[in-house]
Amino acid sequence: MTNNSALRVVIVGGGFGGLYAAKAMPAALRVTLIDLRNFHLFQPLLYQVATGELSPANVAVPLRSLLRRRPHAQVLLAEVVDFDIAARQIILADGRVEYDSLVVAAGMKFNYFGHDDWRPLAPGLKTIEDATTIRARLLTAFEMAERSNDPAARRRWLTFVIVGGGATGVELAGALAELARYTLRHDFRSINPADARILLVEGRNRLLEAFPDDLSSRTQSTLETLGVTVYTGAIVTDVRSQEVSVERGGATEVIPTGNVLWTAGVRTTPLADRLAAATGAATDRLGRLVVEPDLTLAGHPEIFVIGDMAHFAHQGGQPLPGVAPVAMQQGRYVAKVLARRTAGKPSPPFHYHDRGNMAVIGRSAAVADLYCCHLAGFFAWMAWLFIHLLYLAQFQNRLLVLIQWAWNYFTWNRSARLITEPPKTREER
Amino acid sequence: MTNNSALRVVIVGGGFGGLYAAKAMPAALRVTLIDLRNFHLFQPLLYQVATGELSPANVAVPLRSLLRRRPHAQVLLAEVVDFDIAARQIILADGRVEYDSLVVAAGMKFNYFGHDDWRPLAPGLKTIEDATTIRARLLTAFEMAERSNDPAARRRWLTFVIVGGGATGVELAGALAELARYTLRHDFRSINPADARILLVEGRNRLLEAFPDDLSSRTQSTLETLGVTVYTGAIVTDVRSQEVSVERGGATEVIPTGNVLWTAGVRTTPLADRLAAATGAATDRLGRLVVEPDLTLAGHPEIFVIGDMAHFAHQGGQPLPGVAPVAMQQGRYVAKVLARRTAGKPSPPFHYHDRGNMAVIGRSAAVADLYCCHLAGFFAWMAWLFIHLLYLAQFQNRLLVLIQWAWNYFTWNRSARLITEPPKTREER
Repeated sequence: MTNNSALRVVIVGGGFGGLYAAKAMPAALRVTLIDLRNFHLFQPLLYQVATGELSPANVAVPLRSLLRRRPHAQVLLAEVVDFDIAARQIILADGRVEYDSLVVAAGMKFNYFGHDDWRPLAPGLKTIEDATTIRARLLTAFEMAERSNDPAARRRWLTFVIVGGGATGVELAGALAELARYTLRHDFRSINPADARILLVEGRNRLLEAFPDDLSSRTQSTLETLGVTVYTGAIVTDVRSQEVSVERGGATEVIPTGNVLWTAGVRTTPLADRLAAATGAATDRLGRLVVEPDLTLAGHPEIFVIGDMAHFAHQGGQPLPGVAPVAMQQGRYVAKVLARRTAGKPSPPFHYHDRGNMAVIGRSAAVADLYCCHLAGFFAWMAWLFIHLLYLAQFQNRLLVLIQWAWNYFTWNRSARLITEPPKTREER
Repeated sequence: MTNNSALRVVIVGGGFGGLYAAKAMPAALRVTLIDLRNFHLFQPLLYQVATGELSPANVAVPLRSLLRRRPHAQVLLAEVVDFDIAARQIILADGRVEYDSLVVAAGMKFNYFGHDDWRPLAPGLKTIEDATTIRARLLTAFEMAERSNDPAARRRWLTFVIVGGGATGVELAGALAELARYTLRHDFRSINPADARILLVEGRNRLLEAFPDDLSSRTQSTLETLGVTVYTGAIVTDVRSQEVSVERGGATEVIPTGNVLWTAGVRTTPLADRLAAATGAATDRLGRLVVEPDLTLAGHPEIFVIGDMAHFAHQGGQPLPGVAPVAMQQGRYVAKVLARRTAGKPSPPFHYHDRGNMAVIGRSAAVADLYCCHLAGFFAWMAWLFIHLLYLAQFQNRLLVLIQWAWNYFTWNRSARLITEPPKTREER
């Protein structure tokens, strides 16, 4: 199956960048894709797992499935801990792997801006386990409110604070508001789930700063119609187990709640620091590695860095945003560069084709900043549906997701409302 | 919504018995269904989650969804720890609940016959988390074999031992054999997954002892065709982390493997012991409470015990088997008895309508012991499919499961092959 004299390409990370690179690599190369997990995660839909709309397997596809028809590509489940650049080796937790060309696409993690102690109190949404943990927390909060006889405790259980008004924060707030208002409407006997207070806290003066002004204000008003309270120009200054402090207009409000979700910012993983240290690459304030026009590191034409962890200076010096289309295009570009190198040909610099930006707010409501126009409402939502179905990595997932969405839409129901972290019973304690 | 003077029925357990009782209870009663989990689990399909065919949400439905149209019924997420029979109260880990009538349907757990230390080494399949844990273990074993260079270690990783040749053991063995032979066929580069050795160990001299002889031997030959090795009259005498000992025909075989699954027997949970102690009810050797012809405990007409944890002497004194149809019929029966009591009417004793027994072995292969006839092969499999779809608790689940099954059938693929217990990374260690 493999050609032992072929050049070895090692790809670190099976996200959008790494997967699209692996899929596009020419068959003349020996490709190894290394990830700690056995699946590719369709991150843009992860918030729907956290809010009970989709199941984990709807948004995650085994990497081996995705590469099964590429016998020149193999998947290795392993943890990359460092790089030996001089020896051209990747250092795993339990071994080493040699490469001729290296593609690093290890993504980002949430940034708590120096408050890493907030992480367990205000979980972020990056992994499948984050999503099922958050789902369990949200649903448990309603259960605890139902069981409580103390109005203050009940109020606290039914207060949800989402930190960060980017796409993930907006999508979570909208999905949570609909869960409380519609899906759970007939489910409880002592509380009215629609009484839930959902607060979206954004530090800047508008939501969705990557979008134009008119779509930001449209997003805010749509969320408010759904019952979400939007605080802009507001900073979370403390997170404790039963309350958060929010500073806004000079005053500090203390909000009793144990339900805090974090979507407020990202930075690179420690692996990016190690790669920067090993190669001497420059990094920006989020830890992203500054790449050349061909996505390699300066002085290391054999090392490519792509996706969220790359700082690629776009028009006017602004780095490209950390979104799936950038990573996908960069993955495919790297495969093309390596194919051309094999043929002894030079490559043109990477160019990002920006096809627009979208965020969904809820049922029949989304915003889309497209090349042609700004869309909001039902048509933006249809466009969002169509594009996400198009990109879902495997046909079956598309079909199942479509049916699940259709069911959710017409019945206002969500079937994946499982609390799957088992409560500790007295026997186990 | 609730009538405060109505009689209070408390149901412990949201499995088949408890759920069907709750659904059938007359609206004149105040019904409280208590479970530790927020969902009803369709246990007969749980092995398909463990082998990557279905997702957890396909086989688990929120209890609140199932009872939303019954405003006289409420769901309480709580842990029942004991009973105060004199005061007619249930003792929760964090409170008490009063009842006029009590229905206990707390099910069973796996029996390790005095070897509880084997439990972590040879997990059983009772909960959703068991299923995702087993799924992760099975898939990780193939990953470890792929990465190993030591033939002995590789062989050990690819050896799977299933203890217990009842329906669950047979279904797991068949599903695992098909996973290795067909689903994973093109996924690996260093191993051939079909080399996996799958051993099914049964203590009696035939598989599926609840079935007639001809279906048992048909099951064994079908499994052998799939590549499963069947040991009958064989007892597991020790389970260690890297090997198991199996005694058979006077000789002991030591089998190197870390992949052991337990389906060998069940017994009641500690709650059954507490109920027996509180009421003085007789128990059998599995801890089941002996019930009267109307499913109440002797001397306690206000307490019903149903489902797997009840010992109901059937024709000839044999207790009814611990299967879903028994629990469902008993749940409905109890609701009818309570309705008749409200009207001052006596009730006939419980009678079980046995509609037959089925087990699935694999693609297009099952056995069915029906009133009319014994079926094996494709028609038994179609009958199995039809009945399971019919009983899946919610329409959407049925549709999604049908599509998932059709996809699996025609593509030989399984999409829910996720290893969702995150590996500990060096950073966390």
